[in-house]
Amino acid sequence: MNARKPACTSVALAVFAFGALAFAAAPAQAQSGNHLEIIHHPNYDKSVFMPFSPAIKVKSGKILWLAGGTALPVYHDHPHKREQILKYLMNDLEGQVRQTMDGIMETLKAAGASPKDVVHVFIFRARPRMGDIGKASAVVNSYFAPHNHKPTTTNLAVLELGEPEQLVEIQVVAVVD
Amino acid sequence: MNARKPACTSVALAVFAFGALAFAAAPAQAQSGNHLEIIHHPNYDKSVFMPFSPAIKVKSGKILWLAGGTALPVYHDHPHKREQILKYLMNDLEGQVRQTMDGIMETLKAAGASPKDVVHVFIFRARPRMGDIGKASAVVNSYFAPHNHKPTTTNLAVLELGEPEQLVEIQVVAVVD
Amino acid sequence: MNARKPACTSVALAVFAFGALAFAAAPAQAQSGNHLEIIHHPNYDKSVFMPFSPAIKVKSGKILWLAGGTALPVYHDHPHKREQILKYLMNDLEGQVRQTMDGIMETLKAAGASPKDVVHVFIFRARPRMGDIGKASAVVNSYFAPHNHKPTTTNLAVLELGEPEQLVEIQVVAVVD
Repeated sequence: MNARKPACTSVALAVFAFGALAFAAAPAQAQSGNHLEIIHHPNYDKSVFMPFSPAIKVKSGKILWLAGGTALPVYHDHPHKREQILKYLMNDLEGQVRQTMDGIMETLKAAGASPKDVVHVFIFRARPRMGDIGKASAVVNSYFAPHNHKPTTTNLAVLELGEPEQLVEIQVVAVVD
Repeated sequence: MNARKPACTSVALAVFAFGALAFAAAPAQAQSGNHLEIIHHPNYDKSVFMPFSPAIKVKSGKILWLAGGTALPVYHDHPHKREQILKYLMNDLEGQVRQTMDGIMETLKAAGASPKDVVHVFIFRARPRMGDIGKASAVVNSYFAPHNHKPTTTNLAVLELGEPEQLVEIQVVAVVD
Repeated sequence: MNARKPACTSVALAVFAFGALAFAAAPAQAQSGNHLEIIHHPNYDKSVFMPFSPAIKVKSGKILWLAGGTALPVYHDHPHKREQILKYLMNDLEGQVRQTMDGIMETLKAAGASPKDVVHVFIFRARPRMGDIGKASAVVNSYFAPHNHKPTTTNLAVLELGEPEQLVEIQVVAVVD
């Protein structure tokens, strides 16, 4: 990650990234996981279990916008190949969410971002059954829990995704150095 | 629009936050409601009533990304509790939009943002009936009209939201100091 | 476009916009099409045809957020007029995508942005038939191909858009100087 960070070590200059003061002497401030401020309401009831944050403020860094991801490998042929669809798009929501999130994690890593840098997660489900929202959320959240991070999310069911077998599409916005 | 262009003719240090000049002596420039530039087409027909802006440019400030809001209180138990659903998710689109926007306004306030700072509003409706798009829009817009502000919007009906009783989910992107 | 660019002619200073180094001597760096960094996985298979980028990093510039666009003219009456619907919303997905993208191109131009500056494209389709995703993508991509640019995309079918005749809504996020 540090290797991809621009070498901004000029001495007599005030260096601003997204409006965040980043002295050459304190580069740690601009590292992964420090760009976001979780917004909570004043005096909110902490006993209520919230799997997502009400809002996140992007304090610094650069916006990283991901394509909508699916359970197919991130790099897959277009138009979609029938054998790839049958191989990767099983009738298993949690499995598809896991494969999709694995691809998103690879893309975040390729950009030098960590799960802690994720601002928003759109979860678009198809063929919904009662309880699916919670099942999809649980898998998505399991990728952020080890980082003690709760992105903002939007979780809804649409009429159809790219293929009839596709049960989920996940679109992520993050921030990187 | 030219009048809103920052005058970048500083002598000592040109300091840019999001590309917007922010003199230490002129913090007022960075205050709520001054971060956005409404984009209009040249010579557009002002007699056409537009409830939204074609585009908004984020001139300054920091991105504030809200979770998809619902008519439930912003802080509500997960998994959702049946009695909360029955209490808050009435079969009344405009009522649900109002409750959702009230929660969004609280979250904006908690982050130090005003309705004037809202860039985009995604309105996701479920169980659509003819005319619902206009009804939902009218309520949403009523929160911005007192501020003489028209965010960009996307207003569509999806197959299902978090609960069968949920008629709307609203996801907002704003900007704050 | 240049006319709308702030005159930042400071002499001995490093000027930062969004954290991107932009020497006064090299203003070209901040011009249209240079704000985005396409993110690819290391050692990805270049033989796979990908119509979109896995992720895009916003290196510099200012976020430009467009309203969801439709095949109606960008400026159209609200509530929608029946004769406008019948005139513009033909039962032809590719035609509607083309009209929608034409409006989006006009709005980008009005803001001083080019197709090369587009970060993300949400394509929301209604009344989906098999193959529609590819048809819609092909038309959308044709607007970016001449610029050798592949935005990140999310392409899905929803239950209903603003009118029963509306087959597509496209929502774009871009970056401008």
